[in-house]
Amino acid sequence: MKKVLVTGDAGRPQGEPRPSGKTILVTGGAGFIGSHLIDSLLKDGNSVVCVDDLSNGNTKNIDHCLNNENFIFVQADILKQNELDRIFQEHTFDSVFYLVTNPTVHEGVKNPGLDVNKTFLATFFVLECMRAHDVKELIFFSSPAVYGNQENMMSEDMGPLFPVSPLGSMKLSAEILISSFSQLYGIQSWIMRPPNVTGERGTHGVVFDFINKLTADSKKLVILGDGEQEKPYIYVKDLINGVLFIKKHACERFNLFNIAPHDDAITVSRIAEIVAQEMDLKNVAFEYTGGKGGWPGDVPKYRYDVSKLHQLGWQPSLNSEEAIRTATREQLRFLKNNS
Amino acid sequence: MKKVLVTGDAGRPQGEPRPSGKTILVTGGAGFIGSHLIDSLLKDGNSVVCVDDLSNGNTKNIDHCLNNENFIFVQADILKQNELDRIFQEHTFDSVFYLVTNPTVHEGVKNPGLDVNKTFLATFFVLECMRAHDVKELIFFSSPAVYGNQENMMSEDMGPLFPVSPLGSMKLSAEILISSFSQLYGIQSWIMRPPNVTGERGTHGVVFDFINKLTADSKKLVILGDGEQEKPYIYVKDLINGVLFIKKHACERFNLFNIAPHDDAITVSRIAEIVAQEMDLKNVAFEYTGGKGGWPGDVPKYRYDVSKLHQLGWQPSLNSEEAIRTATREQLRFLKNNS
Repeated sequence: MKKVLVTGDAGRPQGEPRPSGKTILVTGGAGFIGSHLIDSLLKDGNSVVCVDDLSNGNTKNIDHCLNNENFIFVQADILKQNELDRIFQEHTFDSVFYLVTNPTVHEGVKNPGLDVNKTFLATFFVLECMRAHDVKELIFFSSPAVYGNQENMMSEDMGPLFPVSPLGSMKLSAEILISSFSQLYGIQSWIMRPPNVTGERGTHGVVFDFINKLTADSKKLVILGDGEQEKPYIYVKDLINGVLFIKKHACERFNLFNIAPHDDAITVSRIAEIVAQEMDLKNVAFEYTGGKGGWPGDVPKYRYDVSKLHQLGWQPSLNSEEAIRTATREQLRFLKNNS
Repeated sequence: MKKVLVTGDAGRPQGEPRPSGKTILVTGGAGFIGSHLIDSLLKDGNSVVCVDDLSNGNTKNIDHCLNNENFIFVQADILKQNELDRIFQEHTFDSVFYLVTNPTVHEGVKNPGLDVNKTFLATFFVLECMRAHDVKELIFFSSPAVYGNQENMMSEDMGPLFPVSPLGSMKLSAEILISSFSQLYGIQSWIMRPPNVTGERGTHGVVFDFINKLTADSKKLVILGDGEQEKPYIYVKDLINGVLFIKKHACERFNLFNIAPHDDAITVSRIAEIVAQEMDLKNVAFEYTGGKGGWPGDVPKYRYDVSKLHQLGWQPSLNSEEAIRTATREQLRFLKNNS
């Protein structure tokens, strides 16, 4: 366990008051989504402890937070229970935001142990620490993969669910375990089910992949599947706003929300066109590997029903196409600044 | 890993043909249900490898099989992956019957790690061995706890399910993981959801508990809850018949069946009366600890919808009351013979 920087209470001059907000643990906070979440939590006056093993996360994503006295970064693998427990011993958390995961569906299909460990078991270890140290709020980032293949719009009251991919299975299993802890041990929980998430600092996914491929070869783009895969996308800053809105306004003991543009999606071929446009590339030859899904375990088409979230009073500012275009621009700028 | 007896191919005289049946692994086979299953599998001409760590199972349950040349008992903890893998290396299995579990809901409520390990992780380890060694059939024993609290009759198409107890959560998670393995890796699976199971060789549960209490004090019986808990019971030999019927006749890649008396249940108070009657005890004072459930995580009332199984062409021979009475008689005889 490596503490890159210890600030917070330890770094604050004697007599200076603690910040007015909460003390929050973000597991997987140096990743794409986690780092945007931390930006918002710090801006709202909270103290944040970010734990990340940097296997998928990157300190580049949180460099700009390191001088903030309300921010602590701990490099640790939460699958090592003693390291995780020490973090809970050293801080009194009000809430935990859980983002650790195996980031890609297809890696889990090759090796389901990735999802069993990083998606499921790590959640259990966090829950056990919360129970032992009396931490009462968990916000969990789930996945569209929990729905498996569905012909109808995916809604929270659908079931029984039997996902295809190990990622989906283990996210759903983690949700189920969290629900049990909520019912038995008084841990209030909010399960967030976003679709694909896109925006600056992305480390995988279709926009990232297409930019990389077109940077390497600006004449040709190989697209997995038939290009007709059609999914909703949420812009990462919309997602964070939505998550914090849900956390504030949904007050059941166990809360479960889809969080996405309503009944809206974009095809992979259209994403390819947008990325090529934003990179000022003309006459790119699109080549398709064929087949309906991009990889085994892929769910090629789906839409989200987010009427529950609309009723709570929130919707994202960008639809799927706007999210992809904004993400492409941000990603290109980010790569330029960090090249 | 301790091999108590090596028979099967190793013990068979040179030139003698293998039995006509299949080679089957039963994990948790020295337990109550597992040992009855093994009796049936051997009777049907199969070779059986029984693995059990004897933490809940007991060699008394399988003593009568040890001289059968088609039976091998291996004492091993399947949570030790290398020991499990060695068993798969040493045999070519056609099917696996999975019965390892944390046997009691309330122990899991005190320590959810019991269910995470014995109910969920052990299933994952077996699935990984099946994938590695190309074993294509899994029969998994689930639990009524997967349904959580339901006002309506519990049926297989209910969902989304969010069980109360860690046992229910982890059985459901195991089912979900199995479904994923069935969809991705061609492992055909049959999920069996029995209610409470009763009969000879039981090691826990209400009949066992009442007999023990009344043996210690024949004047008084302390009953957990208000006695109005009302659940279906299946007789263990009916269960095994039903399981083998389902295995034979249900042919989806992923099969899920309730297996119980239809829309039938018995109260805890009525069970107390039956046990006292069968023990020839009169004027037993029933004392209730009070409250609707017997323990945290208990689901006090439920009924099973088994119309799917009826359509397949099977139903149990005994209803819940008959199952309890038969089990009480058998349990008393078993205790007498083994005292």
